[in-house]
Amino acid sequence: MRIVIDGAPADIWAVSYDAASNEVVLLDQRLLPHRVERFRAKDLEAVAFAIRDMVVRGAPAIGVAAGFGMAQAARAGVDLEKAAAVLRATRPTAHDLFFAVDSVLRAAKAGKDPAAAAQAYAEDTVDRCRRIGEAGASLIRPKDRILTHCNAGALATVDYGTALAPLRVAAREGKKPFVFVDETRPRLQGAKLTAWELLQEGIDHAIIADNAAGHFMARGEVDLVITGADRIAANGDTANKIGTYEKAVLAKENGIPFYVAAPRSTFDFSIADGNAITIEERADSEVRGTGADEVAPKGSPVRNPAFDVTPARYVTSFITEYGRFRPDQLGDLRAKAAEDRGAAGG
Amino acid sequence: MRIVIDGAPADIWAVSYDAASNEVVLLDQRLLPHRVERFRAKDLEAVAFAIRDMVVRGAPAIGVAAGFGMAQAARAGVDLEKAAAVLRATRPTAHDLFFAVDSVLRAAKAGKDPAAAAQAYAEDTVDRCRRIGEAGASLIRPKDRILTHCNAGALATVDYGTALAPLRVAAREGKKPFVFVDETRPRLQGAKLTAWELLQEGIDHAIIADNAAGHFMARGEVDLVITGADRIAANGDTANKIGTYEKAVLAKENGIPFYVAAPRSTFDFSIADGNAITIEERADSEVRGTGADEVAPKGSPVRNPAFDVTPARYVTSFITEYGRFRPDQLGDLRAKAAEDRGAAGG
Repeated sequence: MRIVIDGAPADIWAVSYDAASNEVVLLDQRLLPHRVERFRAKDLEAVAFAIRDMVVRGAPAIGVAAGFGMAQAARAGVDLEKAAAVLRATRPTAHDLFFAVDSVLRAAKAGKDPAAAAQAYAEDTVDRCRRIGEAGASLIRPKDRILTHCNAGALATVDYGTALAPLRVAAREGKKPFVFVDETRPRLQGAKLTAWELLQEGIDHAIIADNAAGHFMARGEVDLVITGADRIAANGDTANKIGTYEKAVLAKENGIPFYVAAPRSTFDFSIADGNAITIEERADSEVRGTGADEVAPKGSPVRNPAFDVTPARYVTSFITEYGRFRPDQLGDLRAKAAEDRGAAGG
Repeated sequence: MRIVIDGAPADIWAVSYDAASNEVVLLDQRLLPHRVERFRAKDLEAVAFAIRDMVVRGAPAIGVAAGFGMAQAARAGVDLEKAAAVLRATRPTAHDLFFAVDSVLRAAKAGKDPAAAAQAYAEDTVDRCRRIGEAGASLIRPKDRILTHCNAGALATVDYGTALAPLRVAAREGKKPFVFVDETRPRLQGAKLTAWELLQEGIDHAIIADNAAGHFMARGEVDLVITGADRIAANGDTANKIGTYEKAVLAKENGIPFYVAAPRSTFDFSIADGNAITIEERADSEVRGTGADEVAPKGSPVRNPAFDVTPARYVTSFITEYGRFRPDQLGDLRAKAAEDRGAAGG
């Protein structure tokens, strides 16, 4: 991903592994956009903390961090079944977490080097996002106005992003897209992270309250919506950041196409539909205020579901590294992905 | 409205006029819920500031404050046409503001005492809200779960509230309603004010991110939605706090009744539909953070519409002091109100 440090552009990964120190290195997303700092996780507990406390967030980036966590654990002599259990317990919704942990565990059991397996997993994640960008960019016409929710950017995926990948590619093609950035309460990943990524990349945008998305859709100011996903069931029901369902319903009501950009690893063909997806409820403090500022009365209870499920009927297409698929075409995606895995021998 | 100060319940008005000092006295809504303080506006400029800076907010309360502002100006010897112009210029969307200013101006021109006219306007506002509460309470069954947006409570209307009036009456009838309180970004009137009012009144509730409203609706956890309004056109198109349109669309999609509670003064029969309603865009800083905490990157632009328009087709009924009316029955409301005004000789 492109970031500008002291005026100089640099190309970095949001998640990496430092073999020399056996540390998992994370761009600390809790401090952005005001401070750019690295969080160096030196052991399994630190990696688990970083995932749980959202130093790293976004399903694919969590997967890569967990994969590197497995490599680190292997080198430190931790039992890998135990390490896998610790990492799997950090967050309940992101499918990539389980996918990555199992992938490195399987490689280790097959006698392969866990560090090489984790690095290959990371490189593969980045390559898939690049391909998502190419598959999605053709949907964007010059000067299109795109609404996005939460951060499904390079920060969430190590590089490129999922929802932001088509925007990056379209911008580099000179299409000058404009992005409505839902601030994305309660954690404000849109205002903090997506806006920051778009600034770094030089893409025009405006941050809006989540409440304003419908207003701009109804006024004809939004041409398409692209979001990421945390887990997608076999029928296309999509778990993603709380509020995604609202924007999907509003897009349909206003005749605006609604796209979900996600790699194969986010699809969970083992579950038939969204009813099987566990929705994490997070701490009250996220809703009580932002940062140090507590706005709610002390006596008032809070409910804070972190995700919602958007039924497949609201999704126009999924943008994947294998191309675009309507919800009724996910069987084709599964077949293509299986074929690809066969060819890669993985 | 019932408030608890140092453990002792008291019954107060959110907006009043102190004839002795010629001051308009406002419960300072910028400081709630953490501090309960009065803002004493001693001249026309102070009243205008209080409306503009949202010391007082909510269409009916703004109306009453402006009415008292006219009375104060009359006593201070300010030209009333000039005072009316200053007050009308404070906020562009709330119809009650114009209604109240014109009402006191008309009384003064007819040789009546402006202070008595403003006080009568305030008492009438409170009485209408009480009647809204009675008209709406029969919609609420025992243990119903009601979602509300923004603050259409006693703070917004001097006493009782509009959207909250049926809840207050239902709670006093022992129906034990539960309220989902949309926090209502960007200014968080739900988390700050509605939650505080419900706490004072002892009504069960939970604050949620605006993004979570759709999730709870889709899960079958919301039985009905009640909001207030800032201006309602002749056809029932309703301007209210940004995000209201989103919740109305989601309610319809989920088969949940969506009610708008508002007094006659919020209906503007002079405009045919919502296209004629001016939508105020407010300062970027409201979206950049909450309070002192600025979360957005400095270089990122913001768009901040304060209201949206909910088309009449999403509104199940309007709850008014004259009873309930579907959007296609607003002619009946108009006739009833005209008859009432005739009877009152006003």
